[in-house]
This record gives sequence, C-alpha cells and structure tokens, in this order.
Amino acid sequence: MKADRLLKVKRNMRDMGLKQLLISAPNSIFYLTGKFIHPGERMVVLSVKENGDCTLFANRLFAVGSVDGAKLVEYDDTDDCIGVLSEDVVSGNVGFDKEWACRFALALMERRSDIKPLIGSPAVDRARMLKTREEIDLMRLSSRLNDKAIDKAISALSDGVKESEIANVYMNEAKALGAGGGSFDSLICFGANCAEPHHATDDTVIKSGDSVILDVGASLNAYCSDMTRTVFFKSATEEQKKVYEIVERANAAGRAAVRPGVKLKNVDSAARRVIEDAGYGKYFIHRTGHGIGLEVHEFPDVSAVSEAVCEPGMVFSVEPGIYLPGRFGVRVEDLVAVTEDGCETLNEYTKEMRVIGC
Amino acid sequence: MKADRLLKVKRNMRDMGLKQLLISAPNSIFYLTGKFIHPGERMVVLSVKENGDCTLFANRLFAVGSVDGAKLVEYDDTDDCIGVLSEDVVSGNVGFDKEWACRFALALMERRSDIKPLIGSPAVDRARMLKTREEIDLMRLSSRLNDKAIDKAISALSDGVKESEIANVYMNEAKALGAGGGSFDSLICFGANCAEPHHATDDTVIKSGDSVILDVGASLNAYCSDMTRTVFFKSATEEQKKVYEIVERANAAGRAAVRPGVKLKNVDSAARRVIEDAGYGKYFIHRTGHGIGLEVHEFPDVSAVSEAVCEPGMVFSVEPGIYLPGRFGVRVEDLVAVTEDGCETLNEYTKEMRVIGC
Repeated sequence: MKADRLLKVKRNMRDMGLKQLLISAPNSIFYLTGKFIHPGERMVVLSVKENGDCTLFANRLFAVGSVDGAKLVEYDDTDDCIGVLSEDVVSGNVGFDKEWACRFALALMERRSDIKPLIGSPAVDRARMLKTREEIDLMRLSSRLNDKAIDKAISALSDGVKESEIANVYMNEAKALGAGGGSFDSLICFGANCAEPHHATDDTVIKSGDSVILDVGASLNAYCSDMTRTVFFKSATEEQKKVYEIVERANAAGRAAVRPGVKLKNVDSAARRVIEDAGYGKYFIHRTGHGIGLEVHEFPDVSAVSEAVCEPGMVFSVEPGIYLPGRFGVRVEDLVAVTEDGCETLNEYTKEMRVIGC
Repeated sequence: MKADRLLKVKRNMRDMGLKQLLISAPNSIFYLTGKFIHPGERMVVLSVKENGDCTLFANRLFAVGSVDGAKLVEYDDTDDCIGVLSEDVVSGNVGFDKEWACRFALALMERRSDIKPLIGSPAVDRARMLKTREEIDLMRLSSRLNDKAIDKAISALSDGVKESEIANVYMNEAKALGAGGGSFDSLICFGANCAEPHHATDDTVIKSGDSVILDVGASLNAYCSDMTRTVFFKSATEEQKKVYEIVERANAAGRAAVRPGVKLKNVDSAARRVIEDAGYGKYFIHRTGHGIGLEVHEFPDVSAVSEAVCEPGMVFSVEPGIYLPGRFGVRVEDLVAVTEDGCETLNEYTKEMRVIGC
C-alpha cells in the first residue's frame, strides 16, 4: 500500500462518514497498491476500513502474489466470492465504488441488510485529483509524447486519406514512442464530422477545405494525455479562420483564468465568454474540460456548474470548441496542471492557425 | 425494436417475475434496437416493461435520432438523469442490468424505496444465447476472418520476435480483413508464459523450443470470434508433443460431446476426462469454455458446475489446456455452434501439431 495515498483516502473516508470502502475500479486499486489487475467479469475488491486495515479480494487466477501492507484473500471460480467478501464487511455506512457492477452490489446487499451502501468513490477520486510532483512529472512526459505523436498524424494528412488511417498513424507513433495504448479512441474528424463532438472516427475521406479535428491521447507509465488540435486541409475560408481565432483565444482565456482559489466554473466561463462575445455561444455545446490522470476523465469537472476550486496538483483539460452543424468545427485542447500561482500547460504543440497540404 | 428478440425478452421477464427491465449493457441495447451507443460515463438505459412498452433514455450528445417502436427520452448533461428515469419506473420487481454501475443504481434506489431491484440481465442474456441462423452466419464469417488472421500471426514467428509484435501482426491483419477490432486483447505467450492462462502479452522474445500460444479473436459485423492455437518454435520435446496430442484430443472429445440435450457440464467433463486420464488433470486449471456472440463472454457457461443444456443456436468455445508452471503450456480452442443433431465447428484452421521456423 502506498502509505501517503492511503492516508489521504482515510481522511476523505472520515469526512464522508464511511466505516469501510469497497474499491473495485482498477485504476484506484493501482493508485493505492501499485498493482494493476484487469478483473474482466471476475470480482476484485480492495477493502479499506476506517482504521486503515486493507484487504484485497481477488480471484486466484490473477496471481496477485502479495500486497505490501494489505491482507490478500484469494478465491476460486467455484467459490462464492460475495460470501467471502460479505464476512469482512462491517455494519453501517459502507462506501461502494461508483462503477461497481450491480451483480456484485445487489448480491452483497441481499445478504447484508445491516449495511448502508453509499457511493464511496469520491474518497479515492479526491485523493487522485491532487497529483504529487512525481505524478505531474509523469503526466508531463505523457503529454510530451502526445505532442510528438500528433505531429506525425498531422503530417500524414494528404489527398485520399481516411480518418481511420490518421488514427492508425497516431496510435502506431504513440506506441513506437513507448505508449501502452490510447487514453481513449482517437477522434479524427474531417469536414462536417468536426461539427459532431462525439463523431466516431470512420472511413470518411479528406476533402480540400475540410477542417480537421485531431483529439488524441495516449497512456505512458499509466498516466493519460489528451490534446486536440484543429487544422485546415489545403484551404481555409475567412469564416474558418475567424472561428479558429476565437476558439484559440477561448483556450488561452480559460488557461489564463486558472490559479489556486478560482472556481472551476469560472474557468469554464472565462473560456465560454470569449466565444459568446464573438456571437458563437450557442455553438459551444459542451463543458470546457475535465480532470485527467490515471484515467482520461477524473475529478475535477470544469463546467458551468462546477463549484470546485482550483488547487495545486489538479490537472485538467481546457478544450473550448465551436461546432457549426453540417459545415465544420474547431476545438483546441490543452492539459494544464495547477501550480502555486497559476498553471503549467502540459502541451507544447503549436496552436497557430495552419493550412496543411498546400 | 427487433420484434422477435423483444418477444423472447418479454417471455423471459415473465418467467423471472419482472415488471420492468432496465438494460444498460451497450451490446444488449444493440441486440434489441440495432443501435450501438458508447455511453462512456453517461447514463444510457433501455427500459422494457412487461407489456412490451420500450423507452430509451440517452444523453442528447449521443444524437440517437429515433428508435423504431420505442419512445426516446433525451436528457442533457445538466439534467438530473436519474430523476428523469425514476419517473418512468414502476413499483415492485424491477430488473437491473448486471453491469449497471452503482452510481446509477444506488441513486435510483435512494429515490424509489418501493422498487425491488433484482438482477434482470438474464432475460436478455438467455435470448442472446440462442442465436438465429442469421446470427450464426455472421459468427461463421467472423471465425473465418480469425482463421486467416491467425495464419498471418503464426507466419510471423521468427528469431528475435516479441509477443507484442505478433499481437500487432494479428490485429493489423484482422483489421485489413474488415474487423472492427479485437474481441479481446490478444494473448500471445512464449515459453513459460504459456503456463499462465492470464499472462498479458508483453515484450518477451521468442526462444528456440518455446511453446507459443496464440489466443486471438476479432469482431466482424459486431460478432466476436475467439480461437486458440499452440505451435512450437524450432523444436519440440517428446513431452511437448505428448501434451499437445492430449490437449488436441481433449478439444475433439469436448466438441464430440456437443448435441442438443447434453448438459454443458458433461461437455466440460468429456474434455476434462481426456486430460485427467492422461495424468495431467491438475494442470487443466480453468473451465472448458464460454458462450460467445456480441460479446466474447456470454451464456452459456461450459464448466463442471454448468447445469445448462445444449440447445440449437448456442455458440460457445471448447478450449482445454495443460499448463506446466515455469515450463510450457498448450491450449487448443475452437468455437462450436450447436445444431439439431450435434455441432458445427466454426474454426477451420489446422490443429495439427506443428513446429514452426525450422
């Protein structure tokens, strides 16, 4: 067990009134134990009690070995794993993982009407939200890798190329640079597809005059990167250039607003105001950003309703966009790490307005 | 809504005493609606009531459009999505998806103490277990693709090659043949890694005399394939050849036992007995197989405790193995589809004992 991290989790548990926490999220188990277990359909639970006693319940197939500072309870496929877990669970307020599957949760509740299940994940998520210097160093490395890999993808934009091919170029380069994989499925969008923030990369072929959104990230040493750049292929209209300039200014304004003590909703509004003032407010249809770390979406939320306050060690995205349905879209995203007096932008890749391939 | 499939689900709901079913698994929603939605962290629920009324609850960002035969209720990120869902939920026995995340399930239960949550997924899983002729045709195509892609991977075994490189060869070939992606992370194991059934493919370099396990599958038209072959690199000892021959016979015996009316536990024991009779029983440390379809692990279970009975339309794996810790391992896996009088093996790739690269 990582003692400093466990201490933070215990403190959060106390604040939340939890007697025990059942953690099933693989990234949270990794955060506390240093062991990454892919549970598949099997049950893996790290139990943390208010006194700090930790027990890891895992199928023997995972061959966990041992966990320093925690008891290991292994079970077989033919064992009643919920029964084994149930024996260790206390009465009263027990924190369940927000992602824990109902097949486990309902089975435990069926046997133990004396427990009061609550969503306990914030106890770990709030600890994970505040990165240590070492974690920030790892996230910077991951973003540096992303800077390099996106350049390869942008360089591959050429006549006849498909979105899916650019996604492959990105991922192959990221892996060649040491990434374990993508932080998420790369979003490569050409032309009108750029106007759908949740367009899934497909075999659309590039056309002259297309906006091109590359929203990409990779995982290095378990930490995620995430960056978006928009370029234009062969030509850009005056409107496209104008929209780009607005979004780039919104990105800069959002980042400039970041410093300890500022509410995240004010980071959102700093970026949003630039777009609204330019008359495109109704085309910025999502929140400004999200926390990131071992997972691509973590605390804090960077939206209009986020009352959370910037603290040193937070890492989140600032990613305003303008989406003009059926026509084109622009998004510019960087990761920032909150410092003592502002923030560090983890991405160095250029945000200049660029027309590629001409 | 696919009417024939909905009918089966309604029948299963009645058998289970469910007044309403809340389906969150993307594959089950796809099975019933033909729409595949990646929910990410957002809530997507398909509600099916006992009278057949269907409602799809989805975030507006997913731009579902419409669903034939179902009501569509869209919500925004700033809406209280559980509140919206709660208004539509009846009192009494309500089936929750086995995979539904606690953050949704506990929030609904908090508001609605009048519902009795039960795991409702079997109502869909049992329908999905019995494939139609059209589904079997798609699964055959997916396995044919797998036959071709594994051949490319085996052909790439050569001095200095790493497990991860072979995994890449497989996946690139599968995608070139039209696969949407892997059914799961390919398990490529060299030498002693073969003795760990859950070894994660890494950068281990091949050595002369290694057993090589390739456990691979890809998804084509949404249906999964899954096959394992074991070959030897440059040389094989008499013991390796003997173990291979036993496992191949166990695979054949398992498949030969499959016909309507036979219990799945007897399919398991038919394969297991061959290995036990040869004196290697304690080295076959997992179940004989698992159902497969839209997902790589579905109903039915093919294990020593599976009381389920073979029915036409079931598709499952037969994958016995022998694992000798620290030394080597052999697994041979095919998919079979239960027919009226036996089964069809969906994989055609050779199972002959082969020494590669010499």
